[in-house]
Amino acid sequence: MKPFFLWMLLFFLLLFPPLTISAETPISDATSECLDCHASLHPGIVAEWKKSRHAQVTPGAAASVQGLSRKVSSESVPDALKTTSVGCAECHGLRSDAHKDSFEHNGHTIHVVVSPQDCRTCHSVEAEQYSKNLMSHAYANLAENALYQKLELSILGQPTFIKDRIRHERPDAVTREEACYYCHGTRLSLEGTEKRTTDLAGELEFPIIRGWPNQGVGRINLDGSKGACSACHTRHLFSIATARKPYTCKECHVGPDVPAFKVYEASKHGSLFSSHGSSWEFTNVPWTIGKDFTAPTCAACHVSLLVNQDGTVVSERSHQMSDRLPWRLFGLIYAHPHPKGPDTTSIRNKEGLPLPTDLNGEFASAHLIDEKERLHRTETMQAACLNCHDRSWVNGFWNRLENTVSKTNSDTRVATQLMEKIWGTGLADGKENPFDEAIEKKWSDTWLFYANTIRFASAMGGGGDYAVFADGRYMMAKSLAELADWWAFRRHPILVAPQK
Amino acid sequence: MKPFFLWMLLFFLLLFPPLTISAETPISDATSECLDCHASLHPGIVAEWKKSRHAQVTPGAAASVQGLSRKVSSESVPDALKTTSVGCAECHGLRSDAHKDSFEHNGHTIHVVVSPQDCRTCHSVEAEQYSKNLMSHAYANLAENALYQKLELSILGQPTFIKDRIRHERPDAVTREEACYYCHGTRLSLEGTEKRTTDLAGELEFPIIRGWPNQGVGRINLDGSKGACSACHTRHLFSIATARKPYTCKECHVGPDVPAFKVYEASKHGSLFSSHGSSWEFTNVPWTIGKDFTAPTCAACHVSLLVNQDGTVVSERSHQMSDRLPWRLFGLIYAHPHPKGPDTTSIRNKEGLPLPTDLNGEFASAHLIDEKERLHRTETMQAACLNCHDRSWVNGFWNRLENTVSKTNSDTRVATQLMEKIWGTGLADGKENPFDEAIEKKWSDTWLFYANTIRFASAMGGGGDYAVFADGRYMMAKSLAELADWWAFRRHPILVAPQK
Amino acid sequence: MKPFFLWMLLFFLLLFPPLTISAETPISDATSECLDCHASLHPGIVAEWKKSRHAQVTPGAAASVQGLSRKVSSESVPDALKTTSVGCAECHGLRSDAHKDSFEHNGHTIHVVVSPQDCRTCHSVEAEQYSKNLMSHAYANLAENALYQKLELSILGQPTFIKDRIRHERPDAVTREEACYYCHGTRLSLEGTEKRTTDLAGELEFPIIRGWPNQGVGRINLDGSKGACSACHTRHLFSIATARKPYTCKECHVGPDVPAFKVYEASKHGSLFSSHGSSWEFTNVPWTIGKDFTAPTCAACHVSLLVNQDGTVVSERSHQMSDRLPWRLFGLIYAHPHPKGPDTTSIRNKEGLPLPTDLNGEFASAHLIDEKERLHRTETMQAACLNCHDRSWVNGFWNRLENTVSKTNSDTRVATQLMEKIWGTGLADGKENPFDEAIEKKWSDTWLFYANTIRFASAMGGGGDYAVFADGRYMMAKSLAELADWWAFRRHPILVAPQK
Repeated sequence: MKPFFLWMLLFFLLLFPPLTISAETPISDATSECLDCHASLHPGIVAEWKKSRHAQVTPGAAASVQGLSRKVSSESVPDALKTTSVGCAECHGLRSDAHKDSFEHNGHTIHVVVSPQDCRTCHSVEAEQYSKNLMSHAYANLAENALYQKLELSILGQPTFIKDRIRHERPDAVTREEACYYCHGTRLSLEGTEKRTTDLAGELEFPIIRGWPNQGVGRINLDGSKGACSACHTRHLFSIATARKPYTCKECHVGPDVPAFKVYEASKHGSLFSSHGSSWEFTNVPWTIGKDFTAPTCAACHVSLLVNQDGTVVSERSHQMSDRLPWRLFGLIYAHPHPKGPDTTSIRNKEGLPLPTDLNGEFASAHLIDEKERLHRTETMQAACLNCHDRSWVNGFWNRLENTVSKTNSDTRVATQLMEKIWGTGLADGKENPFDEAIEKKWSDTWLFYANTIRFASAMGGGGDYAVFADGRYMMAKSLAELADWWAFRRHPILVAPQK
Repeated sequence: MKPFFLWMLLFFLLLFPPLTISAETPISDATSECLDCHASLHPGIVAEWKKSRHAQVTPGAAASVQGLSRKVSSESVPDALKTTSVGCAECHGLRSDAHKDSFEHNGHTIHVVVSPQDCRTCHSVEAEQYSKNLMSHAYANLAENALYQKLELSILGQPTFIKDRIRHERPDAVTREEACYYCHGTRLSLEGTEKRTTDLAGELEFPIIRGWPNQGVGRINLDGSKGACSACHTRHLFSIATARKPYTCKECHVGPDVPAFKVYEASKHGSLFSSHGSSWEFTNVPWTIGKDFTAPTCAACHVSLLVNQDGTVVSERSHQMSDRLPWRLFGLIYAHPHPKGPDTTSIRNKEGLPLPTDLNGEFASAHLIDEKERLHRTETMQAACLNCHDRSWVNGFWNRLENTVSKTNSDTRVATQLMEKIWGTGLADGKENPFDEAIEKKWSDTWLFYANTIRFASAMGGGGDYAVFADGRYMMAKSLAELADWWAFRRHPILVAPQK
Repeated sequence: MKPFFLWMLLFFLLLFPPLTISAETPISDATSECLDCHASLHPGIVAEWKKSRHAQVTPGAAASVQGLSRKVSSESVPDALKTTSVGCAECHGLRSDAHKDSFEHNGHTIHVVVSPQDCRTCHSVEAEQYSKNLMSHAYANLAENALYQKLELSILGQPTFIKDRIRHERPDAVTREEACYYCHGTRLSLEGTEKRTTDLAGELEFPIIRGWPNQGVGRINLDGSKGACSACHTRHLFSIATARKPYTCKECHVGPDVPAFKVYEASKHGSLFSSHGSSWEFTNVPWTIGKDFTAPTCAACHVSLLVNQDGTVVSERSHQMSDRLPWRLFGLIYAHPHPKGPDTTSIRNKEGLPLPTDLNGEFASAHLIDEKERLHRTETMQAACLNCHDRSWVNGFWNRLENTVSKTNSDTRVATQLMEKIWGTGLADGKENPFDEAIEKKWSDTWLFYANTIRFASAMGGGGDYAVFADGRYMMAKSLAELADWWAFRRHPILVAPQK
């Protein structure tokens, strides 16, 4: 039986070749040099890279693919990159002149922080789309909005107790980097260089980068570009599967302000993903409904190129995710039609505040998409829904979402009217900072946590626990009652019996 | 080597036949017609269905199975259904006369909403059991209980601020459908018909159904039946595996009111499921302890037909889940012996309120199971436990649960006594609505969230974080202290020093 | 083709032998006797055991393994155990004289509760390390600390409403076992014996054990030893894979006090584990970075023996997890350098309280590790990080953690200064119990929940939602504002306008 066994072994190796064989894509000399040291210095990321498509397919081969399965969206790729894998040197040595953190490293000029502008070399369409995505502007949209900076100050600022109140001093840079800007992205800057003694190459000089590490969606890079593709296409596997699974979105969308993941995971779609997702196919491009997966993840509705089993395109790939979003569910302070562009710093409401809505709930319409565009985006989104649900289902679902946007905005209006009464009588000071006193926090809970949670539960789940008890309508009603109770009692602390 | 390779390929195909081969169950002409259009219109659900047992086994073949692995519980199935797969037309064309939403569709009379009464055709035992399950009455048990309607009003009602208090107007129908009734089930009604232009068949007429979509457990269907099998046996895979995984239960049991999933996932059982469940077998009937799985999911304890490795039945299958439940842990407002029947609308406590307990914690015993039945149900549940745990373990565990039921009820009593003092002095108005003022919400937190969480943590986990800090005893103690603080200060706002 | 098919079947069986074949490790006569009954009585745990390494490898064979893959750390194993699998009788019959719960059972003397002192027979190094782990002292560190007992009383105590305040009577033993001591471990004691009629052997006598069941990390066992290996190496699979997956840690680290799991799951590391962990190898010893896994779980950083792909040891295995921890992030009430030893009952701060820090934040340094040791532990931890991240990344990350420890301690100081003002004016009574009044709970929220959550989010995730909105800095700021508001208003309830 021995020879038969050997035949079989050979057969098995042919059928299931070990990864190293398929990874015999040529590696550039420069990347080989990198790997000489870093394969043992950083085995984790090198192993991830070896499993990646970047290691296994040359840009030349990738660019020769035509049709929907093409992943390289640039019309052509530079000749210098065509015939070797996309390795260390290819990305970290690209566009050296543009990167402030470029430095000499064992005979090569490399930079630490690879940017979307680098990725654009092969993935130009996605880079262009992403530049129109709100996320790519997440740094300035927070850091350069005077009003949001007051909210940030009230959360991150160093507290001190002065004259019966907590006052906040400007937060330190490190706290900001770890808090809001972990997701929004930090502004990177070169602070100088330092010498370090290395195990394999003696003393070497490295750049010191303020704001590093960070993989926030709106990171300001050292070449001036915005964003971090690695936020979702995690280093160094860069797998489309990673980005298509909801765990990636969860990294920034799990808190009560944007509980998208929690809501999804408890929805019918999320339940199917949790129960059956391990048998789905997450790497195919295009992504075929019914064959590759049978319930959407975040990416299916918001980003991916979807086809039905005839190969007909159901949804175009988009890295400008607002393409399919008529409403911005995240209330500032009301849910509102999506802004026209990704830079929201110039938006002003009627009151002159840098907000897309007035405090009474009216939209700053000049800066927001109009009804026609909303309808267009609604249809774009519904095109995906209709692959599993008939029109009457989709209409019923969507009707509830529109109703919920309206009703939660109405709740926010009640809360804000109460808050304005409180400010009006001097019981709180909304001028200096409308977000920092105890009663103001109770107000911000209503629109930042509960209205958002209710809307996300509606949009991603059609209802459920997050629509009612889990940061939902119960909590909204409780906060409204507490605002009213505080207001009534503070004005007349002795006379407390409610006058029904 | 070529011929050898071909032999091998053939061999592999024989060993692992592609799904299409096994799916060569005959499809009825009517279903074929449906698929002609819907396979490309709704590829997602058609793909799910093709993977389903319904697509792969005819009712005739299924009904010929004898013994514990039989899945068709009806003694016989109609001849017309025996020899083809259970496809679109078989379910959506069944009992047309009974369904108000039946309509002509390309020469067939079909209805949109398939009901348990349809499923009963083949699964009569499960349908019958489920009709005795509290869940099947979840609509009326909430919608037709005057007291619970006040709670619903205080959560879903449209708030307005009048005379120092939040008042609630009747919630709109759409909000109700998306909130409480997402889980409880909506009452469906036919509102008329509409014409829509379709891609493949031009203008067609469709029913308009109020309350649709919905898959709540107590949905009132258009044939008058109650419930939605698809709540757990999700369309259109209808897989027993889906229902046996805890993610399905999570869809309605993750909030602080019934945090069963969260508690389970953090328990030893849940940890084993999370770590090793991917290697367990979730489709076998009966479900063999030790062979198919080594730690229970929700279904194992509450629903499934369990056998040990000798094939001896450990737990009978039941879709009347209260079969194994002596206590209703969900406090209304106290945990109490399970109601005798699934319709709780006629229950009245000593005070005449539609509640299974008095406000002081006494049980409305005439409506609840007696001690003998409680003991019987306890033994039924423990039969499952004893397959992995010896009697001393089970006794110790159960003793703690009984103690926790008693102690949390005692906590609720303290909270309620305080609330009654507050009502008694007119500081809040418990008559009009005992659930809508700020201090009343703090009271409802204690029994609706914290007492429930503590009890679920006890029953499903034997303790842990949810028993203490995560919505557990710490939060209960905090709320009690806040109730006391509010009461003391409101009566004497000037004289605040505690008199110890 | 028939004979070929049979050849193939044979071949497959050789390549993938069914488990029963590999499980043909000799079973001792005593264990065989156990299995005679218990295989059908307790199929769940017997099935788990059969899959376990304990069932498949004899201690003799395991002890003959040399080098890093050796799992038996004792220099030698007793002859009596060498040649049979580690079955029922081997563990439950070990060191009978030492166990108070040893009893005669069908001709064998066995004990119910297997202790680390039993496991030490083969795993002496791990048992020794674990005895120096804080966890092994978790019982007394809570139960014998007079101050923590006040906190426990305020949470678990039976509440009654007396003179405008909630008072707590001593909690009953059963509640304590199910609450704090579920994780900390119960103190087991023998309460007597009872006779029970068994299905297979008629009337038998069994010990009654107070505090049972329990698998808490610091359980006081009936042989006087401390801990429960089964807390993480869950019975009866005892799989290293179970302990290496984060779900095991979650059993006690998911609440707001120590939200390690929640923070991890939302981190980049956790996202990779969730998305790709199903293809990782969790049983290999040593555990090879890049080959076996590409992102750390809890165990990778805190416990496991890690090597890089050259086979070089990156991190030594340690069951004294503080080995790699310079800071104790869990605030008591401030984060502080780790205690020198695992028994913290003798620690006293400057004020004489059994706390590792003063109320103003100074460290009880005599009891805590010094800076040199902190640096050493920091380097030990960073050795793991450096396998995927370069030095500048690691430094940036660590710098933020140190900053966050400092800033959250500063927040705790502000909260505590406010609390001391409140105590000072008699508005609350910090003497009798500083943890039981409403305003004191608001204070304990700040250090027990929010400061901890922020620090865990920093250490395990580098930021994200848990650093800001999800029990993070927003909640910290809100609580501080509420403490200030309460204090200001209680002193001057009429004069409420803030004096800015």
